[in-house]
Amino acid sequence: MGNVKDVHHTNELEQLNNEVIQKAKLVKEASVSLQSKTTQQKNQALQAISEQLLIDQAYILSENEKDIQEAKETNISASMLDRLTLNAERIQAMGDQIEIVVSLPDPVGDQLEQFKKENGLVISKRRVPLGALGMIYEARPNVTIDAAALSLKTSNAVLLRGSASAKFSNRALVASIHQALQRVYFTENAVLLIEDTSRESVKELFHLTEYLDLLIPRGGKNLIDLVVNEATVPVIQTGAGNCHIYVDARAQYEMVVPIILNAKTQRPSVCNSIENLLLHQDFFNEYGKEILEALAEANVGIYGDEKVCEVFPKAILATEEHYAEEFSDLLIGIKVVDTADEAIAHINQFGTQHSESIISEDATNVEQFFNEVDAAVVYHNASTRFTDGFEFGFGAEIGISTQKLHVRGPMGFLH
Amino acid sequence: MGNVKDVHHTNELEQLNNEVIQKAKLVKEASVSLQSKTTQQKNQALQAISEQLLIDQAYILSENEKDIQEAKETNISASMLDRLTLNAERIQAMGDQIEIVVSLPDPVGDQLEQFKKENGLVISKRRVPLGALGMIYEARPNVTIDAAALSLKTSNAVLLRGSASAKFSNRALVASIHQALQRVYFTENAVLLIEDTSRESVKELFHLTEYLDLLIPRGGKNLIDLVVNEATVPVIQTGAGNCHIYVDARAQYEMVVPIILNAKTQRPSVCNSIENLLLHQDFFNEYGKEILEALAEANVGIYGDEKVCEVFPKAILATEEHYAEEFSDLLIGIKVVDTADEAIAHINQFGTQHSESIISEDATNVEQFFNEVDAAVVYHNASTRFTDGFEFGFGAEIGISTQKLHVRGPMGFLH
Repeated sequence: MGNVKDVHHTNELEQLNNEVIQKAKLVKEASVSLQSKTTQQKNQALQAISEQLLIDQAYILSENEKDIQEAKETNISASMLDRLTLNAERIQAMGDQIEIVVSLPDPVGDQLEQFKKENGLVISKRRVPLGALGMIYEARPNVTIDAAALSLKTSNAVLLRGSASAKFSNRALVASIHQALQRVYFTENAVLLIEDTSRESVKELFHLTEYLDLLIPRGGKNLIDLVVNEATVPVIQTGAGNCHIYVDARAQYEMVVPIILNAKTQRPSVCNSIENLLLHQDFFNEYGKEILEALAEANVGIYGDEKVCEVFPKAILATEEHYAEEFSDLLIGIKVVDTADEAIAHINQFGTQHSESIISEDATNVEQFFNEVDAAVVYHNASTRFTDGFEFGFGAEIGISTQKLHVRGPMGFLH
Repeated sequence: MGNVKDVHHTNELEQLNNEVIQKAKLVKEASVSLQSKTTQQKNQALQAISEQLLIDQAYILSENEKDIQEAKETNISASMLDRLTLNAERIQAMGDQIEIVVSLPDPVGDQLEQFKKENGLVISKRRVPLGALGMIYEARPNVTIDAAALSLKTSNAVLLRGSASAKFSNRALVASIHQALQRVYFTENAVLLIEDTSRESVKELFHLTEYLDLLIPRGGKNLIDLVVNEATVPVIQTGAGNCHIYVDARAQYEMVVPIILNAKTQRPSVCNSIENLLLHQDFFNEYGKEILEALAEANVGIYGDEKVCEVFPKAILATEEHYAEEFSDLLIGIKVVDTADEAIAHINQFGTQHSESIISEDATNVEQFFNEVDAAVVYHNASTRFTDGFEFGFGAEIGISTQKLHVRGPMGFLH
């Protein structure tokens, strides 16, 4: 029996290998054929996808319904269920998103620099496609369309690995994409979906350096950590965000509360919201109580150090775990510091190199904060919520990079 | 006995872990302290190292002598022995190289862009240090000094892992660096050397994502492949080079032979030399024999396809293995192709995405070659030998990148 089982297991594993490796290979081959597509041809392909989604709407919604039924049986949260659910309006929104990508300039072939050397050599730097991308993402089916549209516009082929919970929806969406690609004489292999949604199929992607030029994980911290720690294919590390605001001794009180409330409460679930607040002792002595009350009034739960708990007894005493946590919720850690040095050291210890802000009127401290805080984006007198591809004017956003080797900060289309 | 041996093995492994992990941690900590160093302070540290090398010259040479003696016992090649050998002149050259790094502008803090959004937000993009680097390199002891100087100038701390064959030399050089750093109040941990030169100690570096921001392998294809295929720390993939020249149907004969001879014979051991030559059928019919003879006269051994062997009987029939090989020697593979498409497909199949050149007077084919060949640098009517940080004007060169996610092509100081 044991033997029979082993054989069975091996077969399954081989089939798995086959699907992931075979599709990666096809996507790599397709990436070559995309190099010669013109901007017009790529935009036609995108428009065909947008149209096909409307044509196939009934089928897509019926397949999505299967995912929803399965999800309901597993007792998932209402917000997760909402993210999974498609309807006519959301399919229209996918089409609108594609239209935005169509309207963006084509980055491929962009000449970034050109200079002539004394020996007569003319050197130009041009933007080129990456080649074959691997996209690993969770739940939301609209990512399937986003990823396909951004990849095609940039002449990249893409291998998609969505989550098990959206498997029927994703298959239906990719079937629509294939219909559209056929109509405009693009190879279907420019966008392939891995149908195996087991954990093993994700890991299979990690070492396909021969076929994949890049992996983009989009999802929670666990997914990103898994990919970053195990993959040898280069990874775009998009960011978990334990972001801070540091209020310096000399800060304009009038701007402090609005900035903190914006950064904490506008959309607490996203990565560019703050999780922790550092207050200089002098500022805290004068305005601490008012800030704590403003946060409490906005329904923000407070984990504070001893000084905070003393002034504001409703606060819970903070531990190192709290300072390290990305709450993604209406919760905040607050610490009183003696110096800007202490604030910077705390941020460099607990931060995730995402977005960090100083509120200060002291130019020396601002410059020190800018130079010594290790983060993708460092702010002065502004909310960390501005870390966003659209806010920065970089076009459609792929993610916010917290990796230093490649582009750092909001990664958009045009940047 | 088995048990005793196992215990012994574990202890060794732990000690190993300890050295690599401990030093990586110290280097990461040191990287923070480098952030606040001014350009002047960094240049003083570099000058102190340059001076200390001269002060310690006798000791360095006596330690180098130990490496040379060990090398002679292992029967290494004369060229390897030459690369390992230090003398007064070469120590002077190390100092001169440091002086060049001193004279370069400080890239840290460079403002690359600045723009103001409609909402009043001013966004600046500034160049920042990477943090803690891991440098894995072979044989030549001068890399120890190059890597330390470039790292310090760019406010990066560096963990060095040199080869066993240069271990005495590298230790002596790093001892000098430490003396110098102490004199200028820099932490010694800004430049640390892993003394364990076993293969395991290299691999230990591959997964230290917590401490190392980047790995730079400098050496042969085997070393680079090992690091690229196994490391999860981001890697600067510097290049193995299977470079090609494609001579199109319409090419100016007068420039063909000089370019080919330059690309093949000027320095056959380096990565930007060509390994393979593709000749369009029409060009081959007219000039093939003359080109083959010019190469043979320059002592280049020829592996050719059937057409080549027919015209030039001294050629050896080429196999796919020859087309895939980086000879790094006075050897060349030559193939006759029917179309530019065939040349491009051959290059994309066998090339290493390093440097590829087309010699042609046909603008359409040149543009197609530029768009469809997947390589860091693509040339028109020029030798691949120009792929070099100094030639491009990028300052001291770290390597030539064949990876697409980060900077591609010659990676210098200023680029």
